[in-house]
Amino acid sequence: MKKTMTNRETAAFFRNHDRFLIINHRRPDGDAVGSAAALCLGLRQMGKSAWVWKNPETTERYQAYVKGLETEEIPENAVLVSVDLATENLLPLNGSAFAGKIRLAIDHHISNEFYAEDTNVDPKAAACGELLLDILKQLGPVSPAMADALYVAVSTDTGCFRYSNVTGNTLRTAGELKDLGADTYPINKALFDTKTIARLRLESALTDSAEFYAGGMVCLCSIPLNLMDEIGATEDDADDISGFPRSIYGVQIGVLIKELREGGAKLSLRTGPDYNASEICARLGGGGHKAAAGAQDQDGLASAKKRILAAIAESGVQLT
Amino acid sequence: MKKTMTNRETAAFFRNHDRFLIINHRRPDGDAVGSAAALCLGLRQMGKSAWVWKNPETTERYQAYVKGLETEEIPENAVLVSVDLATENLLPLNGSAFAGKIRLAIDHHISNEFYAEDTNVDPKAAACGELLLDILKQLGPVSPAMADALYVAVSTDTGCFRYSNVTGNTLRTAGELKDLGADTYPINKALFDTKTIARLRLESALTDSAEFYAGGMVCLCSIPLNLMDEIGATEDDADDISGFPRSIYGVQIGVLIKELREGGAKLSLRTGPDYNASEICARLGGGGHKAAAGAQDQDGLASAKKRILAAIAESGVQLT
Repeated sequence: MKKTMTNRETAAFFRNHDRFLIINHRRPDGDAVGSAAALCLGLRQMGKSAWVWKNPETTERYQAYVKGLETEEIPENAVLVSVDLATENLLPLNGSAFAGKIRLAIDHHISNEFYAEDTNVDPKAAACGELLLDILKQLGPVSPAMADALYVAVSTDTGCFRYSNVTGNTLRTAGELKDLGADTYPINKALFDTKTIARLRLESALTDSAEFYAGGMVCLCSIPLNLMDEIGATEDDADDISGFPRSIYGVQIGVLIKELREGGAKLSLRTGPDYNASEICARLGGGGHKAAAGAQDQDGLASAKKRILAAIAESGVQLT
Repeated sequence: MKKTMTNRETAAFFRNHDRFLIINHRRPDGDAVGSAAALCLGLRQMGKSAWVWKNPETTERYQAYVKGLETEEIPENAVLVSVDLATENLLPLNGSAFAGKIRLAIDHHISNEFYAEDTNVDPKAAACGELLLDILKQLGPVSPAMADALYVAVSTDTGCFRYSNVTGNTLRTAGELKDLGADTYPINKALFDTKTIARLRLESALTDSAEFYAGGMVCLCSIPLNLMDEIGATEDDADDISGFPRSIYGVQIGVLIKELREGGAKLSLRTGPDYNASEICARLGGGGHKAAAGAQDQDGLASAKKRILAAIAESGVQLT
């Protein structure tokens, strides 16, 4: 692994330059947008010139954080800084011209490809925002607006502190942001306590389709071909829907079967600690991780259902 | 307000006694169970004799934390200590005999009635568990099992850090518990990412019943009389369901109408920052807080719907 810049060196880098263009990644999440916004605000507060490259895929929920910070034109003599960008393959749709030209990358992905001239990557950090708080504190006071943006970064990358990537430092970072003025309640309400009506209709349909086996320990839900269109759901509405069956109380093996437009069906499995999704999916020619795996079926919904139940039974689960 | 014991004095109290019976409150939540469990474990680790009074209403999800710690018989010469108990009116169903006999109360409710001989109450703490970590650290090492129990306490009383009661200290406490060995991911998964199938069916029914007005800004959902029975939902499944309509993206005024067995209907309103639930409900003879209020209707669902929509319109909202 190439040498990683320290936070202190990164702070020095920002002191030593004057004009910055900050770039995040394709399909930007809260960490990408929040990190870019906080860094831009911090640099402007130092009297520097700084912009966030306008990412065409920034969703509505995050737009408030980059309001007044974005540019669609490349500023002259600006140093290019990426945040939360693991590889140049994930440059924003309108940012392919930046490939090979990033001067500094600040990131937390272990898969960072060291595409930039200098790289500050901390794979222990749950969010890029965690590094940025430490860097920004060395450059001046952290304003409430910066704290809000960094709180968005840290909370979204951890599912509001629920995921397994959370460390003691993540929670302490959030505590520090709260004390710096982050208005956490409305952010949490908007990001974690709100669902679109299409998402709710999708969950309703999955609930209606739920079949239980093994005394409720196995649950199978399905999404027929036209369901998404019928309820007006987008891919965004269906984000992480594969986890739905396993989120039902008592379910240790959750299966979601999605009928595919091109024919056949896609199977997604999620399992609790005592079961192995990858091993079950391997029986159908698929694979993945122990807790989350997938497989395909050529013939469609009914066939996929029959075959996955057989695979689960073969793995040693008594279905009835 | 009566004098509050400090955490240091509370630690000294535990050092100076040898036998303890720990009591929480009616319908115990995660803070009540987790605080009692952690304190009991900490005292036993010091070589003291300590038990948690078996609360008949402890729900299944929390029982693992008090396993092996509970007693149903009052131990001789034990000092009575309450945790998270604001008033003796909320003593456990089988604990009314403890009224007037609590030696020490550890609590975080501003409404604490100072019923005990000594009281350590910190209303700034989001959870009783927040105080207890500080007290227990003064008494010895905090084990992973104690950290788990305190994490349950702190996370449940804050809706996994989403509610407005969260402070910087709450999040730092959670970070410290994580570093002390709290296994936060499975706890979060069980407590915050799991719903019963009855709860999901209830949410499905509410989704199906949802009516939108004012361009999606007002949402009205209803629970007809027999719905709960039909889907096999208990009051536990319906916990905080009043918040459901307002959790739909775009909704600023969320109304839930529940038909009552005794006749009539109960109205619950939740509003965003620009609206006043209390003021709207007052038009129907009800009341509450700015963000959450309620009212009754004598005539039932259809009448309640008509009257609340009229009240919302009167408050200045253009419904169509």
